[in-house]
Amino acid sequence: MDAKVNLAEKLALLDAPFRPGVVAYFNDNKLAVVKVLGEFVWHRHEDTDDLFLVLSGRLVIELRDGEVEVGPGELYVVPRGVEHRPRADVETHVLLVEPRGTVNTGDAGGELTVAEVEI
Amino acid sequence: MDAKVNLAEKLALLDAPFRPGVVAYFNDNKLAVVKVLGEFVWHRHEDTDDLFLVLSGRLVIELRDGEVEVGPGELYVVPRGVEHRPRADVETHVLLVEPRGTVNTGDAGGELTVAEVEI
Repeated sequence: MDAKVNLAEKLALLDAPFRPGVVAYFNDNKLAVVKVLGEFVWHRHEDTDDLFLVLSGRLVIELRDGEVEVGPGELYVVPRGVEHRPRADVETHVLLVEPRGTVNTGDAGGELTVAEVEI
Repeated sequence: MDAKVNLAEKLALLDAPFRPGVVAYFNDNKLAVVKVLGEFVWHRHEDTDDLFLVLSGRLVIELRDGEVEVGPGELYVVPRGVEHRPRADVETHVLLVEPRGTVNTGDAGGELTVAEVEI
């Protein structure tokens, strides 16, 4: 992977929502870009917080007691163990930071689970 | 600190370059915004990579064997142990990710060293 990363160029390589591409590593963490469109699955990560930084569009993070709308230039950290479901009604581009090896669907598993892929 | 963070609003609270404000935590890491204008000091972090995500302006990261220009929507990870000096010729806004407790001037110390401040 290149040392300098242009996030828009990396996002252009993704052809489907909910399939993150890893663009860099920071210590034991991966940085990944992802397109969000529609509803993801309810899940939680027992061992890690989950960081969402919105680059474009509008991300809705549903929580069991409400929801948070996150726009471009905004970030939200879902604390470890907290159930959430990301959703977007328009195509939304997000930068994720998670420990390497974190499974995208957390404890939920299922058909939206994808392998960690560098782009 | 609020759960949702608007980076531009946080940056507006900073009144001087090279004085980061912590806006969120992610596991054992802090996320901080900083204004860069002029030259920082040459330094290295022996124990951690150093992540720079440029939000606006143009960041130059000088390395001993060259320099990297990082623009809006681009990120660069300086590997641990690598000497570097951030610089900007126009006011530049950056999101930093570093382990909590990381000193901004690394091994260099000096008058640009600042405490970790939440904003």
